[in-house]
Order: sequence, then C-alpha cells, then structure tokens
Amino acid sequence: MRTRFVLIQTSHAGNVGGVARAMKVMGFDDLVLVQPRWANVLRREETIQRASGANDVLANARIVDTLDEALDGMSHLCATAMTPRDFGPPTRAPREHFDTLFGANEPPPTSVAFLFGSERFGMRNEDVYRCHVALSIPTAPSFGSLNLAAAVQLIAYEWRLALGGFEAAAAAVAERPRADAKALAGMLEHLERALVAVEFLDPQAPKKLMPRLNQLFNRAAPTEEEVHILRGVAKAMLETADRSKR
Amino acid sequence: MRTRFVLIQTSHAGNVGGVARAMKVMGFDDLVLVQPRWANVLRREETIQRASGANDVLANARIVDTLDEALDGMSHLCATAMTPRDFGPPTRAPREHFDTLFGANEPPPTSVAFLFGSERFGMRNEDVYRCHVALSIPTAPSFGSLNLAAAVQLIAYEWRLALGGFEAAAAAVAERPRADAKALAGMLEHLERALVAVEFLDPQAPKKLMPRLNQLFNRAAPTEEEVHILRGVAKAMLETADRSKR
Repeated sequence: MRTRFVLIQTSHAGNVGGVARAMKVMGFDDLVLVQPRWANVLRREETIQRASGANDVLANARIVDTLDEALDGMSHLCATAMTPRDFGPPTRAPREHFDTLFGANEPPPTSVAFLFGSERFGMRNEDVYRCHVALSIPTAPSFGSLNLAAAVQLIAYEWRLALGGFEAAAAAVAERPRADAKALAGMLEHLERALVAVEFLDPQAPKKLMPRLNQLFNRAAPTEEEVHILRGVAKAMLETADRSKR
Repeated sequence: MRTRFVLIQTSHAGNVGGVARAMKVMGFDDLVLVQPRWANVLRREETIQRASGANDVLANARIVDTLDEALDGMSHLCATAMTPRDFGPPTRAPREHFDTLFGANEPPPTSVAFLFGSERFGMRNEDVYRCHVALSIPTAPSFGSLNLAAAVQLIAYEWRLALGGFEAAAAAVAERPRADAKALAGMLEHLERALVAVEFLDPQAPKKLMPRLNQLFNRAAPTEEEVHILRGVAKAMLETADRSKR
C-alpha cells in the first residue's frame, strides 16, 4: 500500500521535522509539501532538530506548487479537518474509516494520501471537497487544537495498525507457567504454619486471614517459580521462629 | 477515572509544552514532573509556545523531587518503555492493555498514572519494576525514536478512546478501594526488611527478589485492607526475628 503524507502551506519548520519523525517511526517515508512558507524548509535547523534522525524522510521529501502535483498517482484521499464541510465528504474518526476501508466488499485502495492543512487555517474547502473522507480525530470539545506533527503521529499510528501493525517490542517475554490449585493450596498451608509461628495468626481467632490471603493470591495467579519463592519465605519464617524459642 | 501523566527528568522545555497540549486535546489535565532539567520549565518561552493554549495544564502542573511524590494516590501504573526488562512487568501495546483492563472480570482501577522517562535515557529499571505494565507503542523496527510529546499524544488518545471517547458516559462500577502505589511501595519496603530479618533475603545477593514480589503484588492489586494485613505479617516477622537474636 503506497502511503503519502501531504502538508499544505505549512508555516512552522519545526513541525515539518516533527512530521518526518512521526512518519518514520511508523514506517512511512513519502512526504510532499505544497507551498511551504519556507522554500528551504527541508534544510532549516529547526526542521532537522525536530526530525531527530528522520533525515532520509526529509531527503526524499518533495516540494511542489500545487496539490495536483502532490497527489500524482494517489487514489484514495483523506483530508484531515476539524470542522465538517457542507457538500464535503463524510467526516469520520480515523479508526472507524480504516475499518470501513478494509472491511468493505470493495477491494481496498492501492494508494492513500493524507492531507494536512496549514497550522493557522486548516484546509481550504476546495481541497477538502476533492477527498474521499474527512478524518476527524476525536478531541476534547473545549480544546481541539491538535499540533500538526501530533495529528500526523496519530493518523500514521492508526494507519499502521490498520495495515497490520508492527510487532510490539515485547513478545520476547514468554508467559511463565502458573502454579496449579494444588500447588497454591500447599503454599498457603505452609504459609499458615509460618504465620502461626511468628504469632501473627492466632489459631483460636483466625479472623478469616487465610481465606483473605487465598483471595489475594488467587488474583495474583502466581507462577510456579513465585510459589517456590513464597514457600522459601514461609520456611525462613518457621526457622526464625524456632530460633526465637531456643 | 483519575488519570495522571508523569514526566521523569525531562530535558526539553518544548516537549513539556507539547505534552500539555497533547493531554488537553484529549481532555486530561493532571501533569506531574519529576526532576525536570529546568526548575522554571513551566514558565519557559518554548514551553508556553508549544503548549499553544494549554496554559491551564501548565498552571496546574506540579514539580516534585521523587517518583513517590508523583504517584501519590495513583493505583495502576503504566510505564512506557521501548525495551522489555527481565523481571519487569509484562510489555503490551497500549490498545491491547486497555482492552484487558476493561475486559477483565476484576473491576478496572480507579486511577491510572502514565510514566514517561527522559528523552535520552528513557526510564530507569527500578522505576519500570514498580509498574503494572510496560506500554510499548508499536513502531518501525528500524526507527523507534518517538518524540516524547508524540508518545504522550498517542497514549492519551488511546486512553481517551478506551474510556469511551468524549460522548460516552462512564459507567459507574462499585469498587473496593485499591491501595495506591505509595501504600504498596511502603508495604514492600516493610516486607523487604522482614525478609532480611528472617534471613530469606540476602542484601548482598538480592537476586531480584523484590522486583519479583513487586510484580506479584501488582498483579494482585491489593486493597488497602490487604496491604494492612501484609504489613502486619512483616511486623510479626521482624518481632520474631528480634526475639531469635536475644
């Protein structure tokens, strides 16, 4: 799936750098700028600083004069707009729209462009009208002022997940085997003797202590290794209590 | 649901402003900074510029010296870490973890803190060990360098959606009061002394015992009453050990 990010009349160089970084971190690299405020925006210091290593995205980026040139070869166009337009495309939340794209009977598009307007004025109506959808990121009703690079970050993230995502960095940590009920009961019986020995549990007035601890450990669902550790604690408690009585 | 964002040793003022804006746009306002590089970071020009109107978030933000202070009153702790730690909490993608939180049989937590490490070094192991989960935002294998404010934006967005978005009203769930992070840390510290006293824990060769127990109790999510019981056990162990040395 070809994916392009198009920034229209962007005024802050720092944002262009932030956008490059946001794209790269989600595995995208096709950036086109339409009439940016600064002709040299791809080489400005703030841009490079905020790009923080996404230099290849900047190096490959193109600057063009018209939206037409920017959209060359792209089939599915997504505006990003906070306010719905009369006569415009349907307004949808990104996740909802991407679900639709891949869930529909129609085959999904072969290429997608995401369009972002200027920081101050957003997208022009004429540009929104060309698009298949206006993506609206859900934001607080009282404060919808999303930074441009932050908006690109959210769209790039949702789009990457819609495309199947990356492996989370985790995975490596294998689930450890949980102790079974018998092992847990054995540990609790051991612990009960230890609690009596250190005089915390009075067998004449047990006050539901063991059922409470049982619930606590049930919720924790200890691994076999953890049950082993807990039995070690009980053993040490019993030995210490023994020494205290000598 | 109380939600707090905690930034640990943040070095760039611009990022603090970007974080405030990212939070506010998703309807969150509780920001705590632990040892930021600049003492006056909340009033610096870059901060205010990047906050772009989220001044109330900055005005309400607190600066503290320790992570303990930052986590006061919070029960469920989410680290954000790119690399899984041995003995650390499970690493999960944000969406996956939030689904688990609300999908489980247990009631969801009453308060959640999201922890973000410094731009250069991320989070310290000790800080990650305290957490219930390490959230890992899926990123390109070759370039995982997510900007701090962008990471906050993504987490705030996913968390807002998990909470039901802006329209949906939060369902009231009767909950047992869970011990907060401070109470849990205090109990673990008490227990550690008791384990040393009964000669189960060798301070010279701790073998990650305390991080393991921390994870076990995180999974159990003890109530305040249970923490009280566990401290009683620790106290009895210490007293017994004292008697054994007389």
